Amino acid sequence: MCLINGSQLIKVVESLGEGVSDLEVGDHVLPVFTGECGDCRHCRSDVSNMCDLLRINSVRGVMLADGQSRFSINGEPVNHFLGTSTFSEYTVVHSGCVAKINPLAPLDKVCILSCGVSTGLGATLNVAKPERGSSVAVFGLGAVGLAAAEGARIAGASRIIGVDRSSKRFEEAKKFGVTDFVNTSEHDRPIQEVIAEMTNGGVDRSVECTGNIDNMISAFECVHDGWGVAVLVGVPSKDAVFMTKPINVLNERTLKGTFFGNYKPRTDLPSVVDMYMNKQLELEKFITHRIPFSEINKAFEYMVKGEGLRCIISMED
Amino acid sequence: MCLINGSQLIKVVESLGEGVSDLEVGDHVLPVFTGECGDCRHCRSDVSNMCDLLRINSVRGVMLADGQSRFSINGEPVNHFLGTSTFSEYTVVHSGCVAKINPLAPLDKVCILSCGVSTGLGATLNVAKPERGSSVAVFGLGAVGLAAAEGARIAGASRIIGVDRSSKRFEEAKKFGVTDFVNTSEHDRPIQEVIAEMTNGGVDRSVECTGNIDNMISAFECVHDGWGVAVLVGVPSKDAVFMTKPINVLNERTLKGTFFGNYKPRTDLPSVVDMYMNKQLELEKFITHRIPFSEINKAFEYMVKGEGLRCIISMED
Repeated sequence: MCLINGSQLIKVVESLGEGVSDLEVGDHVLPVFTGECGDCRHCRSDVSNMCDLLRINSVRGVMLADGQSRFSINGEPVNHFLGTSTFSEYTVVHSGCVAKINPLAPLDKVCILSCGVSTGLGATLNVAKPERGSSVAVFGLGAVGLAAAEGARIAGASRIIGVDRSSKRFEEAKKFGVTDFVNTSEHDRPIQEVIAEMTNGGVDRSVECTGNIDNMISAFECVHDGWGVAVLVGVPSKDAVFMTKPINVLNERTLKGTFFGNYKPRTDLPSVVDMYMNKQLELEKFITHRIPFSEINKAFEYMVKGEGLRCIISMED
Repeated sequence: MCLINGSQLIKVVESLGEGVSDLEVGDHVLPVFTGECGDCRHCRSDVSNMCDLLRINSVRGVMLADGQSRFSINGEPVNHFLGTSTFSEYTVVHSGCVAKINPLAPLDKVCILSCGVSTGLGATLNVAKPERGSSVAVFGLGAVGLAAAEGARIAGASRIIGVDRSSKRFEEAKKFGVTDFVNTSEHDRPIQEVIAEMTNGGVDRSVECTGNIDNMISAFECVHDGWGVAVLVGVPSKDAVFMTKPINVLNERTLKGTFFGNYKPRTDLPSVVDMYMNKQLELEKFITHRIPFSEINKAFEYMVKGEGLRCIISMED
């Protein structure tokens, strides 16, 4: 997984549309691919962040209000992308999709909280909620998985088991609190059995960040009966089916799914930025490269190859 | 489902074995088919009741301490049954399998808390935890399902949807707070769709008390995305497989399983008895018949036929 965030320049409110009252020109903001209207049943729920109005929509391509695009090149309309359209120097975003943050926060770092890092971090801190001293298995050590591990480290887990098919990733994962490593390609039996053996029956929590269906099943079945909680984050292929023997559920395991780490963009992201500002959350280690916009396609190629590059695309070539 | 509880006479401690310090002769107790040693990781956990030492064991048939039976007829040993052996006038039970209760509680009523009623009640109150004013679907309106509905009623759910294949059960279920009824045999599409339509997208909580695998899947998929919690109680056939599209999980639904309503027998059952004593929990409506021990086989026949009999077997013929 590669973190590709849009321009660093997309950071300051330049002007406000009609009816926008909770932002001011000059505010520092993070644009987020999913929004928070503040008014629907999801926004009013203590636990959901799946806003009815502004939930991720990868096909809309226009502004919600009037179904029109706000971009054009030589008079030809250009579609919006994922609500934020941040591969551009200026953008137009629904006010429900921007989080107003501490103006002292360095936007060339905290911009990575707009997607993958919050997704993994929140999966652990908001959903899995490991207790101090507990054990956590993290499936997949890309950016999202490393953020899930970082969440476990912050929560004080004493054992964090990284699960990946590439041993190369283990060394770096140690910086994110990972203490043990399981290479899925080195075992010819279900990984849940390997983990159960390592942990006297299972881990207290697991977070699945690959989207591979076998990993999803392993992540569920590797948590301890009685109290184990497994959290699914990774998005699988459309035809995948999650399958397990009901007894695995009946024996008091919990299976949960999460989207964007259950963070409500506007309500919750400012406090995640503050976690970074007060040195609880370490963001620097997530950033491996800074790549100018002119080389954006190279960054995408790295991503497809799974080279472990985690970068910020900068408009300032 | 039929509640068959053992003798009313199994209620008072007659004598104590060596090392038993938390009970006294004359204590009123409920024997429970699963125990609580108080010392293992499960007993020390805030959430689990799956004691490592005394968890239900349907094949042991002897006392744990020395592997011997305490019963005999004409010198021939007779096995213990489910740890409690309560179809008898006297029994010998591990002290971790008896809950000391309020001596003022009528044992000919509260004895039904030893199994099914606590199982359903706790599934709702301890695991599903519906909020006041919320909606709850209960799959299966036998004794366990009616107890799950009773839990939803006590929790203040405003809509309780009973799901069963027999419409006969709806009328009685109203006494347990059930407000709506879905007859599974009257629909040729998945019941989760029927319930989603009735509830603007899904119920807040569901509790599955049939053990039918299709119902288990429906119970999970009928809860609302963002905040819905489904709790599985019913025990399915050995070969059943729980299957669902991962997106149903990822959209922030929770799947949990429970055993004996997550009640720790010794720690928690006394307070359930007190819920009855202070009229919060209504037990009388669970009891449809009282059957003398000499007719016990008739009671089992009714149970197999699913006649809706919920009875107490009395030793006092």
